[in-house]
Amino acid sequence: MRNSNRQWRLKRRPVGDVKAGDLELVDAPKPVPGKGEMLVRNVYLSLDPTNRIWMSDMEQYMPPVAIGDVMRGGTLGVVEQSNADGFAVGDIVIPGMGGWQDYSIGSASGPFPAQKLPKIPGVPLSTFMSALGFTGATAYFGLLDLGKPQAGETVVVSAAAGAVGQIVGQIAKIKGCRVVGLAGSDDKCRYVVKELGFDACINYRQGDLVSALKRECPKGIDVDFENAGGEILDAVLANINLKARIVVCGLISQYNATGPVPGPYNFANILMKRARVEGFIIIDYVPRFGEFAMQMAQWVMEGKVKDRVDIHDGLENAVTTLANLFTGGNTGKLLVRVSAEP
Amino acid sequence: MRNSNRQWRLKRRPVGDVKAGDLELVDAPKPVPGKGEMLVRNVYLSLDPTNRIWMSDMEQYMPPVAIGDVMRGGTLGVVEQSNADGFAVGDIVIPGMGGWQDYSIGSASGPFPAQKLPKIPGVPLSTFMSALGFTGATAYFGLLDLGKPQAGETVVVSAAAGAVGQIVGQIAKIKGCRVVGLAGSDDKCRYVVKELGFDACINYRQGDLVSALKRECPKGIDVDFENAGGEILDAVLANINLKARIVVCGLISQYNATGPVPGPYNFANILMKRARVEGFIIIDYVPRFGEFAMQMAQWVMEGKVKDRVDIHDGLENAVTTLANLFTGGNTGKLLVRVSAEP
Repeated sequence: MRNSNRQWRLKRRPVGDVKAGDLELVDAPKPVPGKGEMLVRNVYLSLDPTNRIWMSDMEQYMPPVAIGDVMRGGTLGVVEQSNADGFAVGDIVIPGMGGWQDYSIGSASGPFPAQKLPKIPGVPLSTFMSALGFTGATAYFGLLDLGKPQAGETVVVSAAAGAVGQIVGQIAKIKGCRVVGLAGSDDKCRYVVKELGFDACINYRQGDLVSALKRECPKGIDVDFENAGGEILDAVLANINLKARIVVCGLISQYNATGPVPGPYNFANILMKRARVEGFIIIDYVPRFGEFAMQMAQWVMEGKVKDRVDIHDGLENAVTTLANLFTGGNTGKLLVRVSAEP
Repeated sequence: MRNSNRQWRLKRRPVGDVKAGDLELVDAPKPVPGKGEMLVRNVYLSLDPTNRIWMSDMEQYMPPVAIGDVMRGGTLGVVEQSNADGFAVGDIVIPGMGGWQDYSIGSASGPFPAQKLPKIPGVPLSTFMSALGFTGATAYFGLLDLGKPQAGETVVVSAAAGAVGQIVGQIAKIKGCRVVGLAGSDDKCRYVVKELGFDACINYRQGDLVSALKRECPKGIDVDFENAGGEILDAVLANINLKARIVVCGLISQYNATGPVPGPYNFANILMKRARVEGFIIIDYVPRFGEFAMQMAQWVMEGKVKDRVDIHDGLENAVTTLANLFTGGNTGKLLVRVSAEP
C-alpha cells in the first residue's frame, strides 16, 4: 500500500500532440476522507479522446482542467477507508471523477456521487469501464436515441474498433441493421467483422473511402455514428440517404489540430438529403443510466455484446498510453491499470 | 397576346456566377393544351437561390435541369384555354412548375397538378408567390417543424430581408421569441426592424459578426434559420446555446463556388453544444400545405405577416434579375413580371 498519492497534473495546455512536459507526475499526500466520504484506491483509469479536449481551452462541454489541477478522468477503484453510509472497505466503486492519480476521495452525495458496482459472475471488472460504463452508455444512447436505426437500414461506425465504436456496431446488429465499420488497420477490421459480427469494415487508410463506402453500403447510409470527423465524415456525407441521421459523438481527427479545422466539404449534402446532424455528450443521459444498465448487462451476459479492453500498466505511463488514441495504437477500450484488482 | 412562346433554355452549366451565355432565350411555338390540360399565360416567375442549384450538376434534391431544357421555375398565371375540369378561362393558377417562359401547360393531375388560387380581398396576387406560396411555406415549416422556437428563445435569421427570411422572423415574433436578423445592408436591416418588427438586425458586412451576435443575442442563440452558410453560419455556431437547432434551408454563399467549399470551422460546436443541424427542402412538406395555407392566410389578413416583393419587368431580364439574389440586390421576394396581371 502506497503512503503517497501520485498525481498527473496539467502543467500547460498542449499544442498539437500531447507532449511529455505538458503534464507532470507529482507526489502528493494520500488524501483523508471526511464525513460522508471514502478513500478509493484507483484500479483502472479510463483514457478517452475527450481527455485531450479537457486539456485544451477550446470551446467545450465542461470547464477545461485548470493549469495545476489533477488531470480529470474516470476511474474504478476499491474502497480502503469509508466514512460514508452504504460503502464498506473492499467495495468496488466508481468514485465520481477519480482523476489521474493513485487515490481519490469518493463522496456518497454531490454532483458526482460514488457508485457501488454489483458483482456479476463472469463479467470482469474492466467491463464496468467499457461496455457497462460510460463508454457503453455513449454507444447505447447515441445510437438508439439519436441514430434511431431501423431494421434493414445501413449503419456506419467510424473508429469501429475503438471503445465506443465496437459497442455501437453490435447494438446496430442486434437492431437488425447492416453495419459497416471504418477502422485504421486490417487487423482492426478483422476484429470487428470476425469477432463482433459487423457485416463489413473498411480500412480507411487504403484506397478511396468514398467509393469503398459506396461498395459496402449499396443501399446508402442511413445512420452514421461519427467518432472521427474530417475526411471520414466527408466520405460518409457523400453517401448518405434521404433523412440520414449523423450522430456526432466525437471528432478525434481534429482534437490535436493547432489551427482552425474546416467542417466537412460535403456540408451541403445535409441540406440536399434533409439529413440531421446532432451532437451528443453522454453526461446529458446520466438520469437514464438505469435503462441502459439493465439492457446492456443483459446483452453482455447473453454474449450479444462483447468488448475488448486494452490495458496498459502503470499510472506513470498514462500520458504515453493516451497517445494510442490518436495514433490508432489501441483496439477496444483503453485503460491504465493503476493498481492490482483486489 | 403573343403568338409565340419565349423560353429561357439552359445552354451550358454555369461556372461560378451565371453568365449571359449560360442560358438562351428562344422563340418556341405557343403550346397547345391536351385533354385534362390548360394553357396558362405566366404572370409572375419566382426567382430563387435554388435556381442556381438546378442549373448545376452538384448533388441536389431534384434532377438538375438538362442542357437544352426550359429553365425550371415556379410561376403564377392566368388560364387562357382550358380542357381541364374545374379550370376556366380567367382562373388564376399555379400551373405546377411553369418554367421560365411566357406560357405553360398546366395539368389537372400528375405530379405537379395546377392549383387554382382563391381571391382574397386586399391580398395582391404576388403574395401567392411570397408569403402564401412556397416561400412562406418554407419559412413556416422550416422554423416551426425543425426550429421549434419556444417563447423567450432567441432566433437568428440569415438573409433576413430575403424572401424566406422576412417571413421567418415575423413567425418567430408571433411565437414570442427575440428575433435577430442578419442582412447585407443598413437599409435591409432598417426594413426588418422598423417594418417587420424584428428586435435587431446586424449588417454582416460591417465589423466582427461573432461579437455583434454576442451583443444582440445576450442569452445566446437557440434557433438559427440558415439561408447563407459560410462565415455567417460559423459566427452563429460560435454563439449557440445548448441544444440549439440549426435549420439549414439554404447555403446561398456557396452556390456560385467553383471549387470545394469547406464546412463551418466551428463544426465541433455542434458536438460541444449538443446542437442539431437539419437540412430542409420544402417539397417534402407539400402534403401539409393545407395547414400552412390556413394559418398563413390568417396572419396575412390580420397584418401579422407582411411581405415585400421586388418585381422586375420582362422575361427577357430573368437572368440578369436572378443575379440580385447573389449580389444582395433585392429586398424581399424576387419576381419577374412576365405579363400583366389580368
